[in-house]
Amino acid sequence: MKVLLAHRSIRKYQSKSISDELLHELLECGIRSSNTGNMQLYSIIVTRDQKRKELIAPLHFNQQMVHEAPVILTICFDINRFMKWCRINDTKTDFKSLLWLLNGAIDSSILTQNICVAAENMGLGICYLGTTLYNASEISKILCLPNGVIPITAITIGYPEIVPDQTDRLQLSAVVHYEEYCDYSDAEISEIYSSKERLESSISFVKENGKENLAQVYSEVRYKASDNSYFSSKLLKMLIEQGFNFE
Amino acid sequence: MKVLLAHRSIRKYQSKSISDELLHELLECGIRSSNTGNMQLYSIIVTRDQKRKELIAPLHFNQQMVHEAPVILTICFDINRFMKWCRINDTKTDFKSLLWLLNGAIDSSILTQNICVAAENMGLGICYLGTTLYNASEISKILCLPNGVIPITAITIGYPEIVPDQTDRLQLSAVVHYEEYCDYSDAEISEIYSSKERLESSISFVKENGKENLAQVYSEVRYKASDNSYFSSKLLKMLIEQGFNFE
Repeated sequence: MKVLLAHRSIRKYQSKSISDELLHELLECGIRSSNTGNMQLYSIIVTRDQKRKELIAPLHFNQQMVHEAPVILTICFDINRFMKWCRINDTKTDFKSLLWLLNGAIDSSILTQNICVAAENMGLGICYLGTTLYNASEISKILCLPNGVIPITAITIGYPEIVPDQTDRLQLSAVVHYEEYCDYSDAEISEIYSSKERLESSISFVKENGKENLAQVYSEVRYKASDNSYFSSKLLKMLIEQGFNFE
Repeated sequence: MKVLLAHRSIRKYQSKSISDELLHELLECGIRSSNTGNMQLYSIIVTRDQKRKELIAPLHFNQQMVHEAPVILTICFDINRFMKWCRINDTKTDFKSLLWLLNGAIDSSILTQNICVAAENMGLGICYLGTTLYNASEISKILCLPNGVIPITAITIGYPEIVPDQTDRLQLSAVVHYEEYCDYSDAEISEIYSSKERLESSISFVKENGKENLAQVYSEVRYKASDNSYFSSKLLKMLIEQGFNFE
């Protein structure tokens, strides 16, 4: 509980490495998590070699922690292994669909979060790399992923060098609904986001970006529609090339 | 660590309810988890009312635990709240794409797993409802979800009545790759799945279903291609009706 509530993403690590034994313990915690039908349609790729980190870092927008963290884990939806098992047993099914991609994303994320909790419990720090889906195709090449193995998310792990303050969260009441979704009035929306907007970091964020308000920074700078569309199309293209069906 | 390694899905609960205070603690642990850009594009719907459980249970294939668990949480990708914030700030972006649906699924799953770990740490048991995506459209109606709020996963929570044995997992070496994905030979695949195939539960599973081997039970009974395709198309249709773009 204390571990969960104390979470912050760690972006600056000590050079100290993670022992094989500890890494195995973390991975064991990962695969104990729930997964769809206990088929374990996932694979975990461990990156510790500095040369490979340098190859993969640009695909994660050269975030410094990708160069510096002792371990990077890339967690993938994997139907390659299962399909091979089916083939040698004279059978087959089809998981190359939106439904199963989402199932795979859910299972991979649950597994990853177990690893994160285990890592933080052992005094390590982690940071998710949301860039994984942006450059899934290029990352697949660097990690030699075959058809049917799709990178979903990645994390850096290491001993924290700098532990930042916790980031803000919306009040619990803003994201929890009882029995039915109670849609928000404009006044409620303003109230929900007001403390976030008043943070010093938000105010300088708006100023630095030359925008009028925080929502504009998110929607016109950080996550603008044209970027979202570009990276989504790129991902879709890769999946369709691998035989996924979105019809 | 011990909590993570001791995980089993709980499908039979005591009638004892979960206090508001404890539920809030679990939810607080959930929202402390990492999420994309700290935008918190998710909502959690709490179901405790018995009548609503009865409405939702058929959509989860009438699994008994949905009728019996004191609490069901449905965790959703939510861009409705964020888009309203954008609108009242004279701006907009577009998250109705495959990329953002996956980002939403990842964030929702990470949040859910934090809740699960917190719950198990407090002596509660949980079970994921993989059926959530199968009937996302119908579940949305019961929970009054507006456009832009997509159910991703759901869990039952309660005090365990029956704690089953742990389910098997493939060996860690079967799902972990170092530096590069090392693709499997047929002999390796046979070896990887052999202990699973030899389990007593697997042997009776094959017999009950009148199949030759375990892979056939998975691919021809539990997760056959025609069902996968049916439920994926249904989900895709719902998303396209809500304005999602898969091009």
